[in-house]
Amino acid sequence: MSPGRFITLEGGEGAGKSTQLRALAAALRARGLEVVETREPGGSEGAEAIRALLLTGGADRWSSRAEALLFAAARADHGEKTIRPALARGAWVLSDRYLDSSRAYQGQGDLTDADIVALHGIGSAGFLPDRTLFLTLPQAEAETRARARDGDISDRIGGRDRTFHRAVADAFARFAVEEPARFRPVDASGAADAVTARLLEALADLLP
Amino acid sequence: MSPGRFITLEGGEGAGKSTQLRALAAALRARGLEVVETREPGGSEGAEAIRALLLTGGADRWSSRAEALLFAAARADHGEKTIRPALARGAWVLSDRYLDSSRAYQGQGDLTDADIVALHGIGSAGFLPDRTLFLTLPQAEAETRARARDGDISDRIGGRDRTFHRAVADAFARFAVEEPARFRPVDASGAADAVTARLLEALADLLP
Repeated sequence: MSPGRFITLEGGEGAGKSTQLRALAAALRARGLEVVETREPGGSEGAEAIRALLLTGGADRWSSRAEALLFAAARADHGEKTIRPALARGAWVLSDRYLDSSRAYQGQGDLTDADIVALHGIGSAGFLPDRTLFLTLPQAEAETRARARDGDISDRIGGRDRTFHRAVADAFARFAVEEPARFRPVDASGAADAVTARLLEALADLLP
Repeated sequence: MSPGRFITLEGGEGAGKSTQLRALAAALRARGLEVVETREPGGSEGAEAIRALLLTGGADRWSSRAEALLFAAARADHGEKTIRPALARGAWVLSDRYLDSSRAYQGQGDLTDADIVALHGIGSAGFLPDRTLFLTLPQAEAETRARARDGDISDRIGGRDRTFHRAVADAFARFAVEEPARFRPVDASGAADAVTARLLEALADLLP
């Protein structure tokens, strides 16, 4: 049995993570791999219940501190109930967002990046993906795509201003510099199947 | 305006915390103080929603790691939405359980006491009570009282074995040694009004 692999997709709103996750899963299945498609926050029964708490209510329902703890709790449950069992049986797990989103989105304001990493240490024993595919788009194209998705960006997490989303993009760019072996930027512009091909290329060394 | 005070009641199952909290609140109101009675997990709208997640489901619904994060998230919300605003207007806040319960109950097993304290630092900026009243009972009397309360002890948190509850009692005893200024053991045996008088005595230096 080839080893299971944990792959996460990251990127700002409108980068095409969900579409590419489905396409990547199909491509990996075509190579005979078992693939589990999942997402954060959520991905297990308990984590989906926490997701419902996180994504409903007004913008001030949760402080940034409470929000970061809820994301970390959901991640702990997701890892224990979904990700680790799948990896243990040799499956590939593809997650739409994981720790890096918390670092980029919640590691601003009251909490620091070190706080978010500390929460991950306590909640998930610091468990990291084998590879993180970071879908990059020029800021203008990302905003155009995000605006076209009506509704999807009006929830508590998505509905923030341009300055915030720029800071998120800067944080992701920093992770790519700090962890080049795990965190791989992939150009997400152009035709969807070309993007999928680039993602597969960024996983080439992990494929059996 | 005399300053608001944050007082927590702690102790094992069956020590009489809820009854004594009500009696203590009445005694403080009789002295002209505004008193907010609250509890953990819960005490604010968001924290009560998290409480519902924590107290339902089987014993294995949440791992100890996820559970500790959910308690810390609920505590963050409780502090921001209920405790701090009440203190700011000069009220006394009496909470049935707070951080020390997390330290005693969740700081065993996968997580350490240092982990629980770190979560409190991130979630609540380490905010501590002005005084913690620790209701103590001989183990045998506590067990008799707890058994008499049918149902109350059958939930996810209460329904654990004798070894676990002994370890909890030991943890509380350790806090009393480590933080004598804040954490005061109070004998909870005997008549309820005698216990209330002892609690008031343990707050005498804080009363206006």
